[in-house]
Amino acid sequence: MGESIEKIDSALLDLRNGKFILVYDNESREGETDIVIASEFAAPESIRTMRKDGGGLIFLMIPNEIANKLKLPFLADLFSDVDARYPVLKELIPNDIPYDTKSSFSLYINHRNTFTGITDIDRSLTMRKFAELTKKIDGIDDGLATKMFGKEFRSPGHIPICIAAKNLLSERAGHTELIVSLLKMGGLTPVGSGCEMMGDDGKALSKIKAKQYANDNGLVFLEGKDIVRAWKQWSK
Amino acid sequence: MGESIEKIDSALLDLRNGKFILVYDNESREGETDIVIASEFAAPESIRTMRKDGGGLIFLMIPNEIANKLKLPFLADLFSDVDARYPVLKELIPNDIPYDTKSSFSLYINHRNTFTGITDIDRSLTMRKFAELTKKIDGIDDGLATKMFGKEFRSPGHIPICIAAKNLLSERAGHTELIVSLLKMGGLTPVGSGCEMMGDDGKALSKIKAKQYANDNGLVFLEGKDIVRAWKQWSK
Repeated sequence: MGESIEKIDSALLDLRNGKFILVYDNESREGETDIVIASEFAAPESIRTMRKDGGGLIFLMIPNEIANKLKLPFLADLFSDVDARYPVLKELIPNDIPYDTKSSFSLYINHRNTFTGITDIDRSLTMRKFAELTKKIDGIDDGLATKMFGKEFRSPGHIPICIAAKNLLSERAGHTELIVSLLKMGGLTPVGSGCEMMGDDGKALSKIKAKQYANDNGLVFLEGKDIVRAWKQWSK
Repeated sequence: MGESIEKIDSALLDLRNGKFILVYDNESREGETDIVIASEFAAPESIRTMRKDGGGLIFLMIPNEIANKLKLPFLADLFSDVDARYPVLKELIPNDIPYDTKSSFSLYINHRNTFTGITDIDRSLTMRKFAELTKKIDGIDDGLATKMFGKEFRSPGHIPICIAAKNLLSERAGHTELIVSLLKMGGLTPVGSGCEMMGDDGKALSKIKAKQYANDNGLVFLEGKDIVRAWKQWSK
């Protein structure tokens, strides 16, 4: 218990210093480790590390209230709203996700100052600028916030946004909720950049190997249950 | 000229043998090299190579007539159709893509037998099964084809589909059109899997370094202009 609090504290310190941390959800969910950084510190080298050492999808994680303010929908909701017009969406309904009830995917965006949108420079720009926007729209009304969003970003793009559940860890304990909660506990802009870590055997990197990577690279390795416990304490 | 035809022939042979080829578009477009394989041969190791040696987005490329048959929309069209209901989409209109007039992105899919959808095993399954579906729906009516599609796949997912322009290389010469044209010339199922190659300097891998990679790995390196020339000859 004491050890777990200490680990959370080092993770928050590392996040505040712009370092990566590793977050494993849990055995009964995805059983997957994500390599994560606070988006305000996302640099081209961060994207390079995520794609080389992670290898999964490089994505943004944002709180529900920011999505609300920007009028960013869950893609699954948008699809089911328009499936009369696009019947293929009715056929493709994601009603059989093995580890959860709902996909947290929203739109894919690029910052308008990117070129292709996919280079390390471009992806880090999109992420950093999204974190900056999040700070800028604080206290601004929704309509204006959406306009500010559109002035800087376009969609479709190359950075998928995942929206955290409204009640965070009391509702869902996916990576998006785990990381947004950590960033809030750390007093950081609550926008995270992450990538799933893949193994050489075609599967997700095993927990043992992910811990080894953390050790080798001086990174904190957290498990979902530690974050949930700290979050409950913190939000009391 | 003779050399360029020879290179096209080796590329087609390699594609038929399930090998990767490299395709560079051209200086005045993205200036980007994609590492590409025919999707019918996409194995977990292919995804590993693409994410480790490519590093960009791992995506599917499909012909316009297949998209039509499956009723797969361009995402940009879907978005502009529903932007009265989702005003944020109006703000995010991608009317300023520097290298083209239109994004070729369609939906993101996962095969329903995947778990997270992002592992090498999962992504290769989604790609291979999509190529198989393409063969199965030949001669089948659109409504049934869409149902067959939905029975096997869900969206949102982790594999972005890019749809080639209707008139292929006489209309647009992006990677999607270049690769779909090559697969057609090679008599293969015209569904390709590819990934943009990234450099260590934050930018797309330079043409010189991409050529070096091709040399080191015994892969054919093609340029857009060679493919366009061969395609014109072939479609006469």
